[in-house]
Amino acid sequence: MTRWALLIEYDGTGFVGWQSQPQGLSVQTLLEAAAARLNGGTRVSATAAGRTDAGVHASGQVVHLDLPDGLGALKLRDALNFHLKPHPIVVVQAAEVPPDWSARFSAVGRAYRFSILNRRARPALLAHRVWHVQRRLDIEGMNAAAALLLGRHDFTSFRAASCQAKSPLRTLDRLNVTRHGDRIEIIAEARSFLHHQVRNMVGTLKLVGDGAWPVERVAEALAARHRGAAGPTAPPDGLCLTGVRYERDPFSPIPSNPA
Amino acid sequence: MTRWALLIEYDGTGFVGWQSQPQGLSVQTLLEAAAARLNGGTRVSATAAGRTDAGVHASGQVVHLDLPDGLGALKLRDALNFHLKPHPIVVVQAAEVPPDWSARFSAVGRAYRFSILNRRARPALLAHRVWHVQRRLDIEGMNAAAALLLGRHDFTSFRAASCQAKSPLRTLDRLNVTRHGDRIEIIAEARSFLHHQVRNMVGTLKLVGDGAWPVERVAEALAARHRGAAGPTAPPDGLCLTGVRYERDPFSPIPSNPA
Repeated sequence: MTRWALLIEYDGTGFVGWQSQPQGLSVQTLLEAAAARLNGGTRVSATAAGRTDAGVHASGQVVHLDLPDGLGALKLRDALNFHLKPHPIVVVQAAEVPPDWSARFSAVGRAYRFSILNRRARPALLAHRVWHVQRRLDIEGMNAAAALLLGRHDFTSFRAASCQAKSPLRTLDRLNVTRHGDRIEIIAEARSFLHHQVRNMVGTLKLVGDGAWPVERVAEALAARHRGAAGPTAPPDGLCLTGVRYERDPFSPIPSNPA
Repeated sequence: MTRWALLIEYDGTGFVGWQSQPQGLSVQTLLEAAAARLNGGTRVSATAAGRTDAGVHASGQVVHLDLPDGLGALKLRDALNFHLKPHPIVVVQAAEVPPDWSARFSAVGRAYRFSILNRRARPALLAHRVWHVQRRLDIEGMNAAAALLLGRHDFTSFRAASCQAKSPLRTLDRLNVTRHGDRIEIIAEARSFLHHQVRNMVGTLKLVGDGAWPVERVAEALAARHRGAAGPTAPPDGLCLTGVRYERDPFSPIPSNPA
């Protein structure tokens, strides 16, 4: 067998999320079904770097799976894309990786982008891609609040009740808020995130942005280590997994170092 | 009556275009129906700056229409948006304009963006928003070819047979091509465009980008003044009317000049 890393993109709108569920279509189910077509119909198991929730998108999800030897990377990508049609899931790149490489456990960084449409009129072109917030948000205040969350902390206040991680400790490497006309983008980066962590942080920053909370209350919410102390969970539509980082990027060719 | 300028945004995917047609839903039909609800049910006629084709999007279309006096700009915008639900059309701003002001004839500039997804895998997140071109395009060649079209020319070679403009002369102010990862964006600006002109220019630049045409052939195509001399019409999905310019922006407050 050969282990493959796949860089995949999907529109999460119509899915129950990455992970297979008893009800509804998941990205995992469709990708595994496409891979089984290349495995003589035998089930293939796919593991993702980020188990995105229902409605969450990905432009840079990374997945690994094992298939019989002899497939080339380009052929594999095209064959999976053929079998994934017409679903809004595509394999952008495929690359062979060592048999012990894991999309999930080898990852050393994950990056998410959360988009807000900050205007009175609901989204037309960006429907299902943004959180629509009508009241004008104060970006400076949101950035000041975001800075309070950076670094290594117990993020219990920003963790879903359903979160299965053993420890609530995480190191947040980046959380910054920028405005582009009536769009606000929040970039979050960490080695890994707790379940709903990004959406809970965004829902909390929004309270600062619309003036409901003073900046310092975010530090208090973090210190409380209690989910009820932080803001509500932002809707999934605005969230996109944009990239996963590894010690060595599996999709870059090995650099040749002339001695 | 009061004349209103409306800044509107729409996802053109499911529409027959701006203009009302005997078959299929148009943006004009839906906007006029929403406006009639604010006019005691009496028909209201809406005129747009750019009569976008089926499948073409707009983030900055401008429209004018007349309604009975007494509506405020914010109330009008919200009421139209209420009646436009659930269609992917929204009024972003409304502003009162003089009774002789025309969204179409007062316009002094129009800007379009055409987006190409330049990679092997079909679009997932950008479905219906881009032209999918698999072969790697040479941006430098496309820009060199684009430069040959700038300025005042007879654009007959880039004009749809159905074009109703009296003259094929147009002044192209800007046509430039940039790459952002696997996305290519082409920005086109002119006082006005012929029917299909942007899509025909893009279809021609693509031939240069994929190596089928040398750069100079674009100058020959322009000089031929014959539609068959230029490249094919690019699909509508990638096209978006991003803005319309007027001598004075109707959506900006009048600057107060203290004497």
